[in-house]
Amino acid sequence: MTNDISFLRGVLHREADGDTSIPSLAEIGLNFFVPYLLNRIAATWNADLAEELRKFDLTTPQMRVLAVLSINSGLTINELSTLTVTEQSTMSRTLDVLEERDMVRRRQRASDMRVREVEVTPKGREAFSRFWPVMFSRYQSMFRDINEEEFSALAATLHKVLKNIRLGGD
Amino acid sequence: MTNDISFLRGVLHREADGDTSIPSLAEIGLNFFVPYLLNRIAATWNADLAEELRKFDLTTPQMRVLAVLSINSGLTINELSTLTVTEQSTMSRTLDVLEERDMVRRRQRASDMRVREVEVTPKGREAFSRFWPVMFSRYQSMFRDINEEEFSALAATLHKVLKNIRLGGD
Repeated sequence: MTNDISFLRGVLHREADGDTSIPSLAEIGLNFFVPYLLNRIAATWNADLAEELRKFDLTTPQMRVLAVLSINSGLTINELSTLTVTEQSTMSRTLDVLEERDMVRRRQRASDMRVREVEVTPKGREAFSRFWPVMFSRYQSMFRDINEEEFSALAATLHKVLKNIRLGGD
Repeated sequence: MTNDISFLRGVLHREADGDTSIPSLAEIGLNFFVPYLLNRIAATWNADLAEELRKFDLTTPQMRVLAVLSINSGLTINELSTLTVTEQSTMSRTLDVLEERDMVRRRQRASDMRVREVEVTPKGREAFSRFWPVMFSRYQSMFRDINEEEFSALAATLHKVLKNIRLGGD
């Protein structure tokens, strides 16, 4: 890694003092430790949605499956696990329930009969459509007093961060 | 809500076409739906750390408790739950284990004997200190090719988002 990350070192700027040891978390401060902020925001968003979802008789993984399939139907369990940020074991159980409720169905992929994929049914599509206005309203609230330029910068930086952590530490 | 959020409407700019209905998730696109990006990043970060933590014989909630107490020792269970983004039931069990391992201890708050607070022991502080360089190294990787200006903008926007979702939808 070659880029200058001295700004990560927190308010004390130890490096400028000739101290090359890493800063402590206390020096960075929890509110400037980005993984903490991301976890706080994601957990609050998820908890708020989970509460709304109860009124729609859906769980978080169920809603996420229907959301992702409503964009792109015909995905494998692996693809669904990644895109819904859900572990494979939870995903299998979620798909079982959704299939029983006639909201998704499994089939062989037409272009490759060895691949099993999941598609959304009209009933599943409708269930997500009913919930989506609630979710979009919360999404709007999330960006109150944030303009287009700031929003675009946020999305661009988050894409860089996602790419960096996918590559892993080195 | 009064601010213009037309940029949230995705690439199709339906509003400019005189269509005032809300955009679908497919129109926004999963990669520009910020809660999805935040969940992906947080989940990947947490999974990567959990793997590293196994070598240090610590769980994610245990590490978070030691991290937070290493910044500010003497917190209530409520405060710890919020700052570690951990549910209260998990927090109680986590504190029991950490107390057995002599990494934290519970005591009455000196200024208010009715309040029970948790403090970190030297052994707990040392356990987090051993792990911190691993965590900091991953933190640096996360911000590869991101400069100070971009980092500051990210932190500032995340603070606004956290404030907005704490206030809740309206």
